[in-house]
Amino acid sequence: MADKMSREQLLEHVKMLEAKLANAGVEKKKPARQKIDKLSAKVTDENPYSRLMALKRMGIVENYEKIREVTIMLVGVGGVGSVAAEMLTRCGVGKLIMFDYDKVELANMNRLFFRPNQAGMTKVAAASETLADINPDVVFESYSYDITTVKNFEHFQGRMAKGGLNGKPVDLVLCCVDNYEARMAINQACNELDQVWMESGVSENAVSGHIQFCLPGRTACFECSPPLIVSLGGDEKTLKREGVCAASLPTTMGLVSALLVQNVLKYVLNFGSVSYYLGYNALKDFFPTWPMRPNPNCTNAACKKCQAKHKGWEPPVREKKDDAVETEYDNEWGLEVEGEEANDDALQVYPAAVLSLFVSSHGVANPKRGIVNYL
Amino acid sequence: MADKMSREQLLEHVKMLEAKLANAGVEKKKPARQKIDKLSAKVTDENPYSRLMALKRMGIVENYEKIREVTIMLVGVGGVGSVAAEMLTRCGVGKLIMFDYDKVELANMNRLFFRPNQAGMTKVAAASETLADINPDVVFESYSYDITTVKNFEHFQGRMAKGGLNGKPVDLVLCCVDNYEARMAINQACNELDQVWMESGVSENAVSGHIQFCLPGRTACFECSPPLIVSLGGDEKTLKREGVCAASLPTTMGLVSALLVQNVLKYVLNFGSVSYYLGYNALKDFFPTWPMRPNPNCTNAACKKCQAKHKGWEPPVREKKDDAVETEYDNEWGLEVEGEEANDDALQVYPAAVLSLFVSSHGVANPKRGIVNYL
Repeated sequence: MADKMSREQLLEHVKMLEAKLANAGVEKKKPARQKIDKLSAKVTDENPYSRLMALKRMGIVENYEKIREVTIMLVGVGGVGSVAAEMLTRCGVGKLIMFDYDKVELANMNRLFFRPNQAGMTKVAAASETLADINPDVVFESYSYDITTVKNFEHFQGRMAKGGLNGKPVDLVLCCVDNYEARMAINQACNELDQVWMESGVSENAVSGHIQFCLPGRTACFECSPPLIVSLGGDEKTLKREGVCAASLPTTMGLVSALLVQNVLKYVLNFGSVSYYLGYNALKDFFPTWPMRPNPNCTNAACKKCQAKHKGWEPPVREKKDDAVETEYDNEWGLEVEGEEANDDALQVYPAAVLSLFVSSHGVANPKRGIVNYL
Repeated sequence: MADKMSREQLLEHVKMLEAKLANAGVEKKKPARQKIDKLSAKVTDENPYSRLMALKRMGIVENYEKIREVTIMLVGVGGVGSVAAEMLTRCGVGKLIMFDYDKVELANMNRLFFRPNQAGMTKVAAASETLADINPDVVFESYSYDITTVKNFEHFQGRMAKGGLNGKPVDLVLCCVDNYEARMAINQACNELDQVWMESGVSENAVSGHIQFCLPGRTACFECSPPLIVSLGGDEKTLKREGVCAASLPTTMGLVSALLVQNVLKYVLNFGSVSYYLGYNALKDFFPTWPMRPNPNCTNAACKKCQAKHKGWEPPVREKKDDAVETEYDNEWGLEVEGEEANDDALQVYPAAVLSLFVSSHGVANPKRGIVNYL
């Protein structure tokens, strides 16, 4: 067609094509929304923070704006970590530092977050792209490397100590990895820095999971209570079995992400009760919970150093304020089952050694059910 | 620049621009992956179903392929419904029929799923676009209208009766709406058709929620046990208060979506125990559960007709198989708290009237805690 155009027509045609191309480019690159400097509680369709700031008016959170000062380090951007990252991003966390050495595959599409057209990208690149589009107010930093090598571990721990906003230590580390070595590395780094962290995991058969809140020296570290297979003298590497294709479900992984980030919000924004250990059994819709004391005979030297440092630490007593909040703003339909409140105010903590005993002898831990889990 | 080109150069330039534009278009329209005709358990990076089919090898699900024959109708594509739709899509459900009359706003960005650049689109259009990209194997059908008007209600109920694959009734209806009128409409339609459905809800203060499994005539319908405000003689319209900006969190909504779709999977794929009622209290990480019998004095005539039809119905006894599954494939770290199994095999169902009594007199329902919830 262009062959038959006059020079003037050709020039017009070129202009039109260039404009179309520019638009295509602009449409692709245009940020979906502008940055927002200060959180507002204004109730308009255009305010992405109105429903979050409403938590203040509802009496749930005293100072929601504090979230902008928080830095979360997230290790493992898979089925649990990617959804946790999206939740934190949509909540408007200050800064998010992500680690993962894996690439997105079509085989990951049975879990939330990643899209088929991201297959082949590194998980951190794909996540950063999507998350920055969702909320440009969050500061993102990410690394596509294995944290367990000596060289990377040093850098990883350095970011833990200085990667927070204004060069401070991060506020919280989230462990969303799927293997023993990475968990051991995070545990070691956190014990050495006395860094508060939260653990998460989903079982190979996709129908159970857990989250755990780790305060070095005060609650059990990952080595205080070794997994069954280690305490029985097996090879810890078999925990993530090579060649076995683990099952996974978007439901179980999404639920564990939600439990994890809810615990993060309660911890950093100071509302409700932070859970020390919370399990999820999907087959029975059963949610076991108990706290774990560190093992005085833990083989991890840094853990024992933290234990000495925090000697005499007692779990904080839950504030009475929660009850008032709950009575005032009840379940949507007014239906609510009252908990057994008798022992709510003091935390009961099981020594890790006791749990470890259960694990070693019976294969399952079975402390008294229904232990309270309040901070 | 084009001004100084020769005619030949101009023609070359036009070709190049046209090619670029064509590519931009192709890149935009190219489906992210091809349709897959038959689910495979093959463990490759390219198989989006490998981790789901692994549920069979793990002994959790006997026939995962059955999901392809299932049609789910989902009403309300908001904070809970959109995430539920994504989970069902990633699980490879056969067909998904969605209803919502609302548009995407930036104010929705504090919940998962929708992206800022979808602001202004109808929720069903935005959801269909995203979901078809995630899994082109699912058949999508959607309507952007209010189901509570007389004309729309008729069409809505028609799709319930004939919208399933091959023109059959849908397998399950999910209620993910946020207002009383829409819940009443779904309840009415399901009672009239004796259609099994599941209810979900999140509280205005964003820190509690619930799911409920409704078998017309066998478990309580929405009118069997009226919400507190109605039984106290108040105006039901105040349940969703006008002018009040409800708080919401991606965590609570994501968790309720996960509980809901997990219950759907257990029901349609026949594994684990389907919960009749499961609550979530985020402040305490407490998950109350109890089943509800229909109210013999329910004011809904269609409910009473179903009650007569199903007279003598007893809740199915839980299959023993679950226990075996759980013992074999335990929590990733071998840590598991054993439930109290004494009454697991028979379902205990509270009459709705009793719950209603609790609601009316105390403002909160308080049946014995820890009632088993097995089908």
